[in-house]
This record gives sequence, structure tokens and C-alpha cells, in this order.
Amino acid sequence: MLHMGNKDDDTLSGEERLIARYFRPLATHPGALALSDDAAFITPTKGHDVVLKTDAIVGGVHFFADDPADAIAKKALRVNLSDLAAKGAKPRGFLLSLALPESIGAEWLEKFAAGLGDDAKAYDCPLMGGDTDRTPGPITISIAAFGEVPHGLMVRRRGAQPADHVFVTGTIGDAVLGLKLCRNQSAGQHFKLDASSSSYLIDRYRFPQPRIGLAETVRIHATAAMDVSDGLVGDFGKLCRTSGVSAEIEVTRIPLSAAARAALAIEPGLFTDMLTGGDDYEIVCTAPDDRADAFIKAAEVRGIALTDIGRVVAGQGLPRFFDGEGRPMTFKQTSYSHF
Amino acid sequence: MLHMGNKDDDTLSGEERLIARYFRPLATHPGALALSDDAAFITPTKGHDVVLKTDAIVGGVHFFADDPADAIAKKALRVNLSDLAAKGAKPRGFLLSLALPESIGAEWLEKFAAGLGDDAKAYDCPLMGGDTDRTPGPITISIAAFGEVPHGLMVRRRGAQPADHVFVTGTIGDAVLGLKLCRNQSAGQHFKLDASSSSYLIDRYRFPQPRIGLAETVRIHATAAMDVSDGLVGDFGKLCRTSGVSAEIEVTRIPLSAAARAALAIEPGLFTDMLTGGDDYEIVCTAPDDRADAFIKAAEVRGIALTDIGRVVAGQGLPRFFDGEGRPMTFKQTSYSHF
Repeated sequence: MLHMGNKDDDTLSGEERLIARYFRPLATHPGALALSDDAAFITPTKGHDVVLKTDAIVGGVHFFADDPADAIAKKALRVNLSDLAAKGAKPRGFLLSLALPESIGAEWLEKFAAGLGDDAKAYDCPLMGGDTDRTPGPITISIAAFGEVPHGLMVRRRGAQPADHVFVTGTIGDAVLGLKLCRNQSAGQHFKLDASSSSYLIDRYRFPQPRIGLAETVRIHATAAMDVSDGLVGDFGKLCRTSGVSAEIEVTRIPLSAAARAALAIEPGLFTDMLTGGDDYEIVCTAPDDRADAFIKAAEVRGIALTDIGRVVAGQGLPRFFDGEGRPMTFKQTSYSHF
Repeated sequence: MLHMGNKDDDTLSGEERLIARYFRPLATHPGALALSDDAAFITPTKGHDVVLKTDAIVGGVHFFADDPADAIAKKALRVNLSDLAAKGAKPRGFLLSLALPESIGAEWLEKFAAGLGDDAKAYDCPLMGGDTDRTPGPITISIAAFGEVPHGLMVRRRGAQPADHVFVTGTIGDAVLGLKLCRNQSAGQHFKLDASSSSYLIDRYRFPQPRIGLAETVRIHATAAMDVSDGLVGDFGKLCRTSGVSAEIEVTRIPLSAAARAALAIEPGLFTDMLTGGDDYEIVCTAPDDRADAFIKAAEVRGIALTDIGRVVAGQGLPRFFDGEGRPMTFKQTSYSHF
């Protein structure tokens, strides 16, 4: 198999040269050995655990094949960083596994590597190694990301306690609207969205914002946390189930962007999609009452909105979502599933 | 995205049930959290580095789509373990990223998980987490494996010194013959191979034997090492180049299996393919003269053949391979490349 950067320069193909040229600059960690060995190494920080995460994205499934290559790269890395953030982990590096169809050429790879490099730098998460293969199928990008937490302190889905407050970062439901706009160009007109609102929502779909800046704060304050990748209702349901609790959520408190509120005003039925669609990449977490204020303030200092949307309650059932009139909502499908 | 084991039991699809049923038993490490969280963690052994490796295999590229599912699983893991072994690392765990076409059903997944589980146990390398996605393309399996070495002691491609002996484990060239037999059923007759020789060679292609049992020995004795995945000539050339040395190899000393020797007797032209084809997954490494005997004996104790095939020499050129009459051999292509 072809490993990045392991070809003799004098026998490099055009794309192999690109790999050496564009991916090697991303391998800034000394343990990446400039991608010139078969494996990499990291020296763990004393007293810390290594947090492990892998997520793949597939062309035509998680992104459109004609999406900009740099956006695809960023999404591939960010969906993994989002999990590290929710687990309270500081990113240390990642491995990249790329399966590329014949049609992918130098221009795409250059742009892909540039996007990946920007994010590796922005999130202080260098490329440690990789593997590149041909595929007769669509572009498939699998990333394994590594972070660190002080020993034993990875924030888990388990840990939410009755009376804990339930928090979400940022805003919910933008990405599912962005996806609708990507799929159907007339949707923007239908929802009476101006150009900036449309492009905001599309960006929210294309460019997840992993809340790495909040990782340490989550680790300090949260009793349980996970990232919202498959829809708030279903994902928070998993957290409750793993914690052995239920919860009561007031949907009117769920934070929405101005663009999402504008679309909702025209088409109220979108709300269910927004709560059960995927790709938010926000953090949903729980924290005790006596920490709630400190948690919100610490997030504010870091420039990340953290909104209290309800309370954990004792019980084993799925969390209940109440509308503005206090009526429980029901959902046919609580989250996105490929299967 | 769908993460393994994160669905509510009462809303599981058939395949999701399979994931919970067949993959969860592989997640024996406490830090894998029974695949019921978004990430896993390992607590590094004090004073050790974590070695990182990823390799993917793609249906129709690295294996035949109708290969047995358990064999595919084993190959996916073993190609990664082979690198860990060559780097002197003890496996600690792996992440699995699976992209599956619609046609893959319960039977395939069950067999795949069984094969993976056998190897996870045999190599003491538990499944730590994973991601499963649909793909309109072929089965794509990306594994990221983690091992450990005492701090600073990962064996690298760099480090070979003039006068070092050059060693290879096991036998070379079997897999490329096995691949020929898989591709062309009449090849066995053409090479006058009996059934057991043919199936031996096919097994060598399908089931790489990562030399994990030799990892510590390599770490203690070798000055440089890598696994042979793209052909001995090309791969050892990379080791020499990274080490800034050349070498002189006597090809008559390169260890061959009885089955390979039988095929060679009929078709001497196969020899070049055997030295430059891929998928050997043996270790090529170098060790000082005063350690050579101890190295061979230590390998013998572990039941792994280690053969001295030549010497490192000063110089920057590609290693030279000499035939039985002392004539230098030339190779049109030194290793396998997908690009």
C-alpha cells in the first residue's frame, strides 16, 4: 500500500509529489517524522489519558462530491474534533486515511491539503501520518483524532444527575437547513431568506465549529457531555439513557440563529427537522445547579454561547421536550441514521 | 453520523443490532466504554510513547469483494499490526472505520466481526471505537492502530549504519504468487503446484502474519526497521535512503518458501515479481555485527525465522541486489504503487 511520503523522489508520480509537497507541511509534530516513516509517535503528557476518536465522511453521503475540497477537508477533521471537545480533550494530532477516485487530480488535492492545513494549525492538531489509496468508489476520508485529558477525567455520556441543568452550545438546527439549501436552490426563496442568511446556513452545514475552545470548561463543569451530530433529540436521548436519567427540555429555550428563526417564521414545520436533523456539531451537556452560573460565565469568557435548555429528572424514559404551551412534543424519528 | 453502538435498542435497525451484537464483544478494553460513548481513552504506560498507524483496504483494490469476510477483517487489522511490529511497538488497541455498500448484510458483518475478534484477541489489541457509514462504492475499511514503546525507542527507518547486517523475517514473495493464484485459477497448474502449495501461497496473500512476537526483539537489536508491504526491493530502498546508506544484498540468501521455490523452478521470471511485489508483511531491518547472532537467536526463541541477506554499506545510492553469480540485478519497477 502506498503510505504518504514514502516514495523515492526520483520515482514519484504527479500525485505522489503532491502528497509530499502538500501534506508534509501539515506534519509539524516531531513525532510525525515528516511523514517519512511507517508510523508516528506521541509522548503523552504525564498524568494524562489519550482520547481516541474516528469518524469518516463519504462523498455523496456526508458531503456533495462537488463541494469545495478545502471545505471537505475541514469537515472531515472537524467532525472528529467536535467529539474531542465534548469529551473535554485537548487535540494532539490526527491520522488521515484517504481513498480517492481516479478523477481526483492535483488541483483538488492541493485545495484539500490547504484546508486541512489551515484547520490543523487553527486547532493545534497536526497531521501525524496517513494512508492514500485508490478507490473505484467515491472520495472517502477517514480521520482518527487523538486528544488528551487528565487521567480519568474524560467527560462521558454517563454522569448526568437529576436536577442537573441541560446546556447546549451555539445554535441548533442551522446545518439541517443549510443542507436543504444545498439540495434545493429554490429553498432559500421559499423560506424568504436573504443571501447572507442562506450562506450563513450553508456554512453551518459545510463548516462545523468544533467547540475546542470550550473543552477544558466542559471538563471542569459538566457531569456528562456529547456532541450533537445526529440531531439534538436523539443524541441527548442517548446521553440520558447512558446516564440512566430522563430530562425535561423547554424547546422555546433551544438557541436558534436569526437565519433559522427567519426560515421558521415562514415554515414552522421545519422545527422538527431542526431538532432531529444532524450535523449541528454543538455540545449538549449537563452540569449541577451550583455550577450552572460559573459554567455559563466561563463559556462567555471563551466567546461561546452556552444556553440552559432544561433539567435532568430521575427516570429511565427518553427526555421529554415541551413546547411553548407546555405540551409534550413527539418525534417520529429522533435522529438521523444511515442505516 | 452513525457511531457504533450509540443507538437506542428499541430503535435499532437490523444492522445496528448486529453492530451492537458483534462489535461490542470486541471492545474488551475498559477505556472503550463498551462502544457506548463518543470516544474512547487509553492510559499510556508510564515512560512510554504511543505509536500511531493507519492503513485502509478497499474492495477491488486490496482484496477481492468476494473474499471471505473474516479474511478481509484480519487483513485490515494485520496490515496495521505489521507496522507496529516493525516499529518495535506492543499493540494497545485500534479504531475501525467501516464504509459499507447496501449489499452488505448480517451474514457478512457477523463473519467480519468474528474474524476481527479472533485477531483482536490473538494480538491482544482490542477494538476501542469505530464508525460505520454507508457508501455507494466498495467496502472500505480503515483502521488506526495504537501501540506503545518505551519513550524515544520507536524503531525507525533511519538508523542503519554501514557494516550492519540486513535481516528479513519469514519468507519473501509468497503473497505476490498467492495473488496470481487468486487472479488466475490455472496459474497453479501452470506453476505445477500441488493443492497444499497453492493454498499456502493464497493464505500468505490473504492472511499477513504481523511479526508482533518479534516487536520487542526488533526494538532491542535493530538499528532501523520497516515492514515489507510494497516489495522488498523498493521498501528496503526507502529504509536505506532515510538512513543515508546503501547496501549489498545477495538474493540467493533471501528466504523463500518451499511453495515459492517450486513455482520458481518452473518459471524463473517470477523472481523479480517476488522481490518487488507487495503484501509480504515481513520485517526488513538492520543490526550491528556484534548483535547479529543474539538477534537471530532471540528470534528463534520466538519461533520466527530471521535471515541475514546482506550488509549495509556507506553511500547514498539504492541498495544493490546481486544474483548467484555476483552480478548486480536491475529492476524496472522496485515496488508496487497504486498511483
